[in-house]
Amino acid sequence: MSPPTYELLYHPSIPGRGEYIRLFLEATSTPYTDVGQSSYDEVRSICCSPSSLHDAAGNPPPFAPPALRVKGEGKNGGDLVISQTGNVLMYLAERTGELCGDGGGQERWWVQGLAMTALDLSNETHDTHHPVAVMDYYEDQKEESLRKAKDFRANRIPKFFGYFERVLKGNEKEGKGKYLVGSKLTYADTTIWHVLDGLLFAYPKELAARKKDYPILLDTFYKGIKEEKGIKEYLESGRRFPFSMGLFRKYPELDRQ
Amino acid sequence: MSPPTYELLYHPSIPGRGEYIRLFLEATSTPYTDVGQSSYDEVRSICCSPSSLHDAAGNPPPFAPPALRVKGEGKNGGDLVISQTGNVLMYLAERTGELCGDGGGQERWWVQGLAMTALDLSNETHDTHHPVAVMDYYEDQKEESLRKAKDFRANRIPKFFGYFERVLKGNEKEGKGKYLVGSKLTYADTTIWHVLDGLLFAYPKELAARKKDYPILLDTFYKGIKEEKGIKEYLESGRRFPFSMGLFRKYPELDRQ
Repeated sequence: MSPPTYELLYHPSIPGRGEYIRLFLEATSTPYTDVGQSSYDEVRSICCSPSSLHDAAGNPPPFAPPALRVKGEGKNGGDLVISQTGNVLMYLAERTGELCGDGGGQERWWVQGLAMTALDLSNETHDTHHPVAVMDYYEDQKEESLRKAKDFRANRIPKFFGYFERVLKGNEKEGKGKYLVGSKLTYADTTIWHVLDGLLFAYPKELAARKKDYPILLDTFYKGIKEEKGIKEYLESGRRFPFSMGLFRKYPELDRQ
Repeated sequence: MSPPTYELLYHPSIPGRGEYIRLFLEATSTPYTDVGQSSYDEVRSICCSPSSLHDAAGNPPPFAPPALRVKGEGKNGGDLVISQTGNVLMYLAERTGELCGDGGGQERWWVQGLAMTALDLSNETHDTHHPVAVMDYYEDQKEESLRKAKDFRANRIPKFFGYFERVLKGNEKEGKGKYLVGSKLTYADTTIWHVLDGLLFAYPKELAARKKDYPILLDTFYKGIKEEKGIKEYLESGRRFPFSMGLFRKYPELDRQ
């Protein structure tokens, strides 16, 4: 049986939430099509239409991108469409048997809990530049953004970073500071790594000032993930989209002054 | 083999995010202990300590409550601790084989995607009274709350409600407007139902004004879930905590005027 064909349904040309899924696929050398790059109209009609209903295979419409379409894995031989980033990651882990620790056992629940916590930090980072109205411009909610970013830097970054530092420390015997769970790469690692990379882009001064407080997370771990098989090749390929005006944005006035 | 013993680790006396897990357990008549009601110190030491490390069975510390502890299901016969609400729900579905549609097939991924979307709406509701600083008082971010609540009522409620109305409509042949997926109750249903119940408490005027626009969601569906086996008994038991000052709060100035 040949492996299924995975199609990522996401906006083109930005990392965004789609990147958490891309990193899973790249780290496992799983072939996939990034549909938004060639057929964004198709992505929009599936994921962004305010009137879309269930498709022919009974898939409910996604609320928003990203979604994953898996050829032939749906009902009656149709395609399966799965939405919500964390849900897609767990599906890929189950379907491929990769990046979820000891497989059928306890570790995959830990991996998913840690990945979802990393995605919470990703959402909170987004909200620092859109604290009160998601569809309005940043410039129209800048005062509120300044206040939220101040709290984010003072309280939320230390809370999340302190947490992941502790998890790395608690797993140091097996993970050597390089992995959150067990002794090899999981999608909890790739997910928090991308959040860190986004924060280094968006809040460079804050992260520089915090670096000494979280030596495992911001040094051993952050650097180590870049050297992982699959990830290293992806980072060197030029295929990874740079951060721009998506989830992680560089507004110097929101960073540490 | 007797079923495992489930222990909910959560704050006492509020519905909060723990309620999504309670509803799963109640709807399936699964016995559980709500540890926070009798031993809140234990919950805090596991879920809320800024210095907790991995426990004896290797469980990483939860980032925050709720978490689920499952006796004897951890490594080496210890307990398993799972965190993140959506992760706990998926674990319970897999472990019990209940509330996840057609079981091993496609529907459980749809159920999880829909439940996670409902939890996103739950989080956005929380953020209407804490838009810029999660640890500060509402009264100290009231101006920002007024603005966020206005956007939430005008844009986010219609977007989410319109989405779930569409999903109910797309599944009407099987679900009869009573279920989001298939022809029987899933945890996607119990999760969005609790969000609706919380919004009816927090934003009663807004929901009254919107009722005619979402007849399946706010009438057929909302009423139907209350009659489900397990749920009906729970609602009549007096054991369900009333809404107060948690996720869903009644600040009349944030509601439609």
